Amino acid sequence: VKLGSAVGGEEEALAALGELLPAPPAGELWFGDDAAALSPPPAGSRLLVALDSVVAGVDADLSLTGLADLGWKAMAVNLSDIAAMGGAPAAALVGVVGLGGAELRQLYEGILSASRTYGCPVVGGDLSSGAEVVVTVAVWGSVEGRPVLRSGARPGDVIWVTGPLGAAAAGLRRLRELARGGGGPVPEALVAAHARPKPALTEGKLAKRLGATAMIDVSDGLAADLGRLASSSQVGFELDDVPVAPGATLADALGGGDDYALVFTLPAGADPVAAFEEEGVARPAKLGSCVPDPGRRCLRGSDLGASGWEHKF
Amino acid sequence: VKLGSAVGGEEEALAALGELLPAPPAGELWFGDDAAALSPPPAGSRLLVALDSVVAGVDADLSLTGLADLGWKAMAVNLSDIAAMGGAPAAALVGVVGLGGAELRQLYEGILSASRTYGCPVVGGDLSSGAEVVVTVAVWGSVEGRPVLRSGARPGDVIWVTGPLGAAAAGLRRLRELARGGGGPVPEALVAAHARPKPALTEGKLAKRLGATAMIDVSDGLAADLGRLASSSQVGFELDDVPVAPGATLADALGGGDDYALVFTLPAGADPVAAFEEEGVARPAKLGSCVPDPGRRCLRGSDLGASGWEHKF
Repeated sequence: VKLGSAVGGEEEALAALGELLPAPPAGELWFGDDAAALSPPPAGSRLLVALDSVVAGVDADLSLTGLADLGWKAMAVNLSDIAAMGGAPAAALVGVVGLGGAELRQLYEGILSASRTYGCPVVGGDLSSGAEVVVTVAVWGSVEGRPVLRSGARPGDVIWVTGPLGAAAAGLRRLRELARGGGGPVPEALVAAHARPKPALTEGKLAKRLGATAMIDVSDGLAADLGRLASSSQVGFELDDVPVAPGATLADALGGGDDYALVFTLPAGADPVAAFEEEGVARPAKLGSCVPDPGRRCLRGSDLGASGWEHKF
Repeated sequence: VKLGSAVGGEEEALAALGELLPAPPAGELWFGDDAAALSPPPAGSRLLVALDSVVAGVDADLSLTGLADLGWKAMAVNLSDIAAMGGAPAAALVGVVGLGGAELRQLYEGILSASRTYGCPVVGGDLSSGAEVVVTVAVWGSVEGRPVLRSGARPGDVIWVTGPLGAAAAGLRRLRELARGGGGPVPEALVAAHARPKPALTEGKLAKRLGATAMIDVSDGLAADLGRLASSSQVGFELDDVPVAPGATLADALGGGDDYALVFTLPAGADPVAAFEEEGVARPAKLGSCVPDPGRRCLRGSDLGASGWEHKF
């Protein structure tokens, strides 16, 4: 963790960041030493850790969204991984390659905005030179008892999703059309879904509390990610309905990705709707059920294909 | 943590990696879900976390050393951060941008070699496309009680270093000369010091046990890193001697960096040599003492400069 003690250009970049970074609570050490030192997770819990890199031009198009959005996204995709285990985040480390000065500050505005929104302080990190902008976030957190894995779904379990899908993909599609001079102004909600995806942390903890047998976040589209859950659990699935976000298409919902909604399974008969409403989060939607045949992956009888979505409607 | 469930080209890359990756112990979950789930650190300890990115062409010249060396280095620099707190590593996450297939496998050979050598399993990670090769490692571990910070040195404390300095810088310099057609063959020890730096984990734990008041790893050269320790501790220093590695110069030792030896301070009168010998690691060398004036940074009366080394000999 060199961020607090960098030399040369790194030092200037850090001087600009200094006022943005929060101070640690008593007994913890964040920036400024070789490593950060933190309180361990509560007794009886498991440590959860995740790491994802976001590459400008690959995972985000900086001609469509800003550096602050890139920073938010780098945090959000990792927080979503913690959410998908039913856990709560504790802290994050951020490695940035290829940015300095005002641009680095913009990136950090998005990083720290997500950090504050989801109660996950940035406690250290690294700045490196490089020709390409790469933002790598490592998040850790904890989960009481056992985490919710992808592999626990059983035939007969009902499949739920925490919200309508496809808005992020539709937002990206519409922003691209607009950049080419086509389409009208892009609805705010679609832009936000693409630029500032929301990790479903409250929903993930709730699903675990309600006895979810398996869970995954939708980062690559429902077909691919539900496919992973099904493969891990050695089940198939039959979907009756897919909730499509306003302004999105079924193709966006099935194959678009970047939604970061959670898909989870519950034993038949368990109904999570009232508990979600009590918690003040959007009600989950029922997608369908798990079936014994691992080769069966259908929406209203149409095959969704082995990996990713094949258009057959 | 998408490494265990990647799609497309990532999947092929992972098939090649599969046989290299170790299996988790019972009760832990490594690759293959959204996050890894681990046993928490022992009661009474602090969680230590560090993250560093290594960029090909910036932190390592792939025309001089191989991808396996890059992988080793990405692990080693992070393990060294844990060592410098007096801690022990527990596990690592690895994010790789810009490599696939056989090249990714080479990188992972070095990563997993360091992982085995230092007992720090790789439990998850991420693969991303990108034009530039960036390897980001996040390591966490634990330390019993309080970690050794940079800020605890007091005037009168004696400054020690775990080994002779400058070999890594000399190795890089000689490899560059050789690549330009100059110099003779580079001694094995110098190549190894540059290509496969060794985190001083045993030494760091030992220094903590012996009551080290402050500690830092030498990643940017003795002058810069001891300068950081002195700044954090608000002391100056007077050095009597700097142990220079065979084949290296004093300039390599003071300004070269990448040694990953540990510099630590002990109260005057404490002698760590016997304890280091008992533990079977190289005996530490005495560098000098901390002095009250924070502006004083000298080697045998010559000013080392405020940041980095200024040649005045």
